[in-house]
Amino acid sequence: MQNFDYQTPTRLIFGKGAIAKLPRVMARFGKKVLLTYGGGSIKKIGLYQKVLALLPDKEIIELPGIQPNPKYDPSVLEGVRLCKENGVDVILSVGGGSVLDCSKAIAAGACYDGDPWDLITYKVKAKAALPIVDILTLAATGSEYDAGGVISRTETNDKIGYQDRLLYPAVSFLDPEYTFTVSKGQTAAGIADAMNHTIEQYFTEDTTLLNDGFCESMLRSLMKNGRKCLENPEDYTARAEMMLCCTYGCNGILALGNSPSGWPCHAIEHALSAYYDITHGWGLAIITPRWMKKILSERTLPRFVKYGINVFGIDPKLPAPEIAQRAIDATYAFFQSIGIPMHLRELGIDERRVEEMAHHIAVNEGLDEAYVPLSESDIADIIRESL
Amino acid sequence: MQNFDYQTPTRLIFGKGAIAKLPRVMARFGKKVLLTYGGGSIKKIGLYQKVLALLPDKEIIELPGIQPNPKYDPSVLEGVRLCKENGVDVILSVGGGSVLDCSKAIAAGACYDGDPWDLITYKVKAKAALPIVDILTLAATGSEYDAGGVISRTETNDKIGYQDRLLYPAVSFLDPEYTFTVSKGQTAAGIADAMNHTIEQYFTEDTTLLNDGFCESMLRSLMKNGRKCLENPEDYTARAEMMLCCTYGCNGILALGNSPSGWPCHAIEHALSAYYDITHGWGLAIITPRWMKKILSERTLPRFVKYGINVFGIDPKLPAPEIAQRAIDATYAFFQSIGIPMHLRELGIDERRVEEMAHHIAVNEGLDEAYVPLSESDIADIIRESL
Repeated sequence: MQNFDYQTPTRLIFGKGAIAKLPRVMARFGKKVLLTYGGGSIKKIGLYQKVLALLPDKEIIELPGIQPNPKYDPSVLEGVRLCKENGVDVILSVGGGSVLDCSKAIAAGACYDGDPWDLITYKVKAKAALPIVDILTLAATGSEYDAGGVISRTETNDKIGYQDRLLYPAVSFLDPEYTFTVSKGQTAAGIADAMNHTIEQYFTEDTTLLNDGFCESMLRSLMKNGRKCLENPEDYTARAEMMLCCTYGCNGILALGNSPSGWPCHAIEHALSAYYDITHGWGLAIITPRWMKKILSERTLPRFVKYGINVFGIDPKLPAPEIAQRAIDATYAFFQSIGIPMHLRELGIDERRVEEMAHHIAVNEGLDEAYVPLSESDIADIIRESL
Repeated sequence: MQNFDYQTPTRLIFGKGAIAKLPRVMARFGKKVLLTYGGGSIKKIGLYQKVLALLPDKEIIELPGIQPNPKYDPSVLEGVRLCKENGVDVILSVGGGSVLDCSKAIAAGACYDGDPWDLITYKVKAKAALPIVDILTLAATGSEYDAGGVISRTETNDKIGYQDRLLYPAVSFLDPEYTFTVSKGQTAAGIADAMNHTIEQYFTEDTTLLNDGFCESMLRSLMKNGRKCLENPEDYTARAEMMLCCTYGCNGILALGNSPSGWPCHAIEHALSAYYDITHGWGLAIITPRWMKKILSERTLPRFVKYGINVFGIDPKLPAPEIAQRAIDATYAFFQSIGIPMHLRELGIDERRVEEMAHHIAVNEGLDEAYVPLSESDIADIIRESL
């Protein structure tokens, strides 16, 4: 078991009607609020109006239009400008993980005199950040309970994950009812995203019985409840459990003491999204079983066997290699069964830039130190298999 | 799924050599430190000396001699007096859960002008508390990652659990090596304590697939690693995993969204400890299977079946009542196998005060609202069965 230093100070206010506590939570911060959101779905479900009605004493400055795979330019830069010009005291992020990730970059950038890209690329360590409160409307990324975010810079094909202890949300409001209107495609992407977060931490060298059990529970719960959410989008209980599962995805609690895995599928998917701006969860679902196939070996076989038996209920009496193969097939079949297009071509990606992306990943993502080290040609193989 | 409001802000610094970060952590607080500890085992293992050597710039005021089932008088009162007289800035608790529980009561009492008992009994809500840092030497109670404590008052036979958000430790140092010298009896008590924390949260009406899986993993891991700790007290990996398991016991993370269970075994055990000052974990181990037997019914049967199959690997093809019975027997057998005396008589408790204790519990612990409500006569039955 590895040493670790862990803290997640975020307060979770979870459940139907949770937002009633918003005025009291926000009272702790100053008067000027940067309200960040996406394409306007929060207006359609009436959440935007409710938030404004709950905060009559605040001065609200708005940053709308934050896109999926949130962009450095214009969103982060515009948000930082608004914070500095208006002397913003707190950021209120209302939306999914992309809005929140963008808000985190703004929170740090607002307290820094130079180019915020310096912080995202760790050229400069952030010294302060504005506090963040979020109201989540999409169960997927886990950003509501972690200190990280992912920002894309279109002109350089960069999609960079950064994190800093300063960036834990102070409070996350999680009301499963706000996810009732999430489309089937986005719900499936959320399921795949959280499943992959778990898989990335489960497949590593040094794990514990405890963490393995946590991860296996996450995967079983995400599959069962995710399916229910797709069948009946207003199934409160299923939406609630899926939302809680997603919350645990990225703050490390599933893998305290495990050896680092390198998060290889994320490394690969970030390049796909950076080059082609695809839906993150779909990209992960497509990459994951191909990556599994690539890393299956005598060394990794016991992990696959455990995964197959405990997550998919595969008969433990079968020969180990067959259990492993069935586990990989079951992973693929599950993602396909929830309606995810399982080939990159369906998302508009062809072989033309495979080598370029593989090179970008090999240079920038350090996958030579992953659980199973991946060379540039391994990465290209995985992407090609995924086309 | 129930609504919840959850936050555990404590930072965990875990692993061999973790204490190297102590000076940096303590530098954040003022100069005057109340060092709390127990019977002196921290001197035998050299930890006391190491702590002093790491904090040459601090003014250390000592409160030694804190007992298991820590006492209001003298420990809490004496600690509060020392804090007030010396203007203590921070409490450094070095020891097990009893030392830490006592330190929490002191932390709150030091910032209150009246009788600290007012705070422990919720007559007055604490407005402030001194910050707490702890170095744990015993894996058991989970106090290092929760906001609660249990304090005993001998003259009134009270053993009261209290909690307050102000009382989360700021930082908990968890070095499994400090638990190498814990005796077999205390190790077994720690295993039983953490297992019971999990069982108390698992047996309830409204649960989730996710939480059930977390709890089942906890129990499997505690049994497997606990046994290894007993066989080889210096098995670092087993001590480490057991230590991490115990940490999750009481801060609520195993049961977010579950309906409340009432923690019935704790309610009963607290009275046993208050009247007879027995080892908490042993008391819990003795009570648990008798309580299980008492609450087994058509309504609770499915919980027992799930518990039996997923925790003890009992054949799911057996008839449900048989699975349940075997699960209860396996619980008893496990505790017995790790050397816990499984009858209260072995701890010096006989029938004489059973009715008195049952009355005390019925009046003070609210078990009429537990998962399975328990009347005064039910409680007396459970204690009598445990004799």
